[in-house]
Amino acid sequence: MINPDPRPRIGLMLGDPTGIGPEVALKLLDRPETHQQAKILVVGDRRIFNQAAQELGISLHPKLVSMEEPFEWPQPGSHEVAMIDLANIDPSNVTRGKLDPQIGWRVGETLKAMTDMALNHQIDAVCFAPLNKAAINRGGWQYLDEHAMFADWNAHQGYYGEVNIIPMFCTFRVTSHVSLRKAVEMVTPERIKGAVTLAHQVMQDLGFPTARIGVAALNPHGGESGLFGDEEITIIRPTLEKMKDSGLFTEGPYPSDTVFLKAKAGQLDAVVIMYHDQGQIATKLLGFSEGVTLTGALHTIYTTPSHGTAYDIVGQKKANPGAMAKAFEVAVKLASRRGNAAPTAQAH
Amino acid sequence: MINPDPRPRIGLMLGDPTGIGPEVALKLLDRPETHQQAKILVVGDRRIFNQAAQELGISLHPKLVSMEEPFEWPQPGSHEVAMIDLANIDPSNVTRGKLDPQIGWRVGETLKAMTDMALNHQIDAVCFAPLNKAAINRGGWQYLDEHAMFADWNAHQGYYGEVNIIPMFCTFRVTSHVSLRKAVEMVTPERIKGAVTLAHQVMQDLGFPTARIGVAALNPHGGESGLFGDEEITIIRPTLEKMKDSGLFTEGPYPSDTVFLKAKAGQLDAVVIMYHDQGQIATKLLGFSEGVTLTGALHTIYTTPSHGTAYDIVGQKKANPGAMAKAFEVAVKLASRRGNAAPTAQAH
Repeated sequence: MINPDPRPRIGLMLGDPTGIGPEVALKLLDRPETHQQAKILVVGDRRIFNQAAQELGISLHPKLVSMEEPFEWPQPGSHEVAMIDLANIDPSNVTRGKLDPQIGWRVGETLKAMTDMALNHQIDAVCFAPLNKAAINRGGWQYLDEHAMFADWNAHQGYYGEVNIIPMFCTFRVTSHVSLRKAVEMVTPERIKGAVTLAHQVMQDLGFPTARIGVAALNPHGGESGLFGDEEITIIRPTLEKMKDSGLFTEGPYPSDTVFLKAKAGQLDAVVIMYHDQGQIATKLLGFSEGVTLTGALHTIYTTPSHGTAYDIVGQKKANPGAMAKAFEVAVKLASRRGNAAPTAQAH
Repeated sequence: MINPDPRPRIGLMLGDPTGIGPEVALKLLDRPETHQQAKILVVGDRRIFNQAAQELGISLHPKLVSMEEPFEWPQPGSHEVAMIDLANIDPSNVTRGKLDPQIGWRVGETLKAMTDMALNHQIDAVCFAPLNKAAINRGGWQYLDEHAMFADWNAHQGYYGEVNIIPMFCTFRVTSHVSLRKAVEMVTPERIKGAVTLAHQVMQDLGFPTARIGVAALNPHGGESGLFGDEEITIIRPTLEKMKDSGLFTEGPYPSDTVFLKAKAGQLDAVVIMYHDQGQIATKLLGFSEGVTLTGALHTIYTTPSHGTAYDIVGQKKANPGAMAKAFEVAVKLASRRGNAAPTAQAH
């Protein structure tokens, strides 16, 4: 059966309510174009939703639905938003601006419920407002990071990785949340292939089929012909050459202090980085606060703004929903592409 | 005997004549304030000097001098510049815009002669226009980099390091031109002490006795309490604590993706970096082309613009002498401070 409504179904999560999550999520929902781009299913606690809407003067109301019963999606222009009420966070228990492991546990629980919906083909992507990573961890979800948590829930095998999307370019990580010593050991052909393949897929899904993808070197000056390390010669370059032969073209490896100058100058659309800080030093200086974080290579699509819970401005109604809107747009794009590729996943 | 003229004596070298070195050096010499700040001794080939002056329409002439004979320094406003003519580079053998190992050898030879003058207390600092590192290396000066060459010529033992001075802040390196794998091993208390001590000395000499000096962490998120590496806990933090006890205060270790945001925001004047690319990714994005490179912790002061020979614009008279002028000013400041500390070195 062909679904006559081509909008993908995006699961929206309000983030950690100790921070600005509910505020930027409601501001996103208040934009008319949001509902033209997707059918939105908010998952969380309706009291948190209503509190944020009231404080911000936004006249949106949850239309409570259940996955057990078919329902009509609200149309664009409606004052209703489809919502699954988990009734798991009481606003009177929330102290804003303060890390709370109990809330962290509930945030993880909400994301777990949404992951199950995605794996059951009930939603096409998970988009979440800022969470507090430490609260989730201390609350009991003890993973290295949320990406590892998502990978586990997806029963994922093999490479996956955090993708950072800033206005200027995207980064894809060969290694991430490990010591620098271990990162050097983990620069393997398998992980490089994983990151480069992911870069090609994501850039295509984001609408850049001819994206220029640069690969960063590991060593200073790209190893200076082996003088300062040989991983470029023995591992990175041969792996990239093999991938080119199979159609996955990249440029580089470029020394890490020039690859971001190229990206900044518009000569690269994506950079495959070898270790966490290589990319993060550059993206934080060039627009991370406007950026989007995607968990790449999993069955479920997860996007979120790169900025955090912003405890310094929580409750002041001045949080900028720009990055939240971009995270939503990335979820819509990726879900639409995937829907086209696998239409059964889109039927409701 | 007290020298009545307080200006330090700066040895100026014209750089690699295949690049923009002679152009930016002559443009520096053409500024009246240059001669108010220092007594300048150009060392090189007078034919290269005259060629550049003529092409640029600059009416300066070398006053040939010798270290064997006392001489009068030209006064500010004079059309003469004191010069030692090594007669070692014939302009008719120079092909502009092309790496030439033979020229590289001569460039090294010139710097060696200037180092000897500095070690003999005949000049107070060496300031050189851009050279071609690969040309020097292939020409026969086979060192890891020019800093290692200078250290060898100074018979230096122990820590020394490249210092990068950009308009926003300065960086001091715990490790530099080695593989990332080796850099991790070289993050030792001794090298951290060397870099932090150098940072304090140089910032004071540059006129910032109350400079805020931040130290970068080695691992992502600063190791996340040991989850992603423990060098912050076992090596970096204890070393910094000990140094604070002896009066050398620093901040950090800060994660490498926040330390440069602090520096960019004016909250730090200097950053001690653990490995080459950690600093270079940031400084190249934030103003490296206007920057100055100093070889730190050697007996001889060496400064140079951070930019290269700019083969793409050589001979077009449009090279910007801004960074050259800043390199000169750093040499003047450091030589003046050192001169005050050890007046015998300044007597002529």
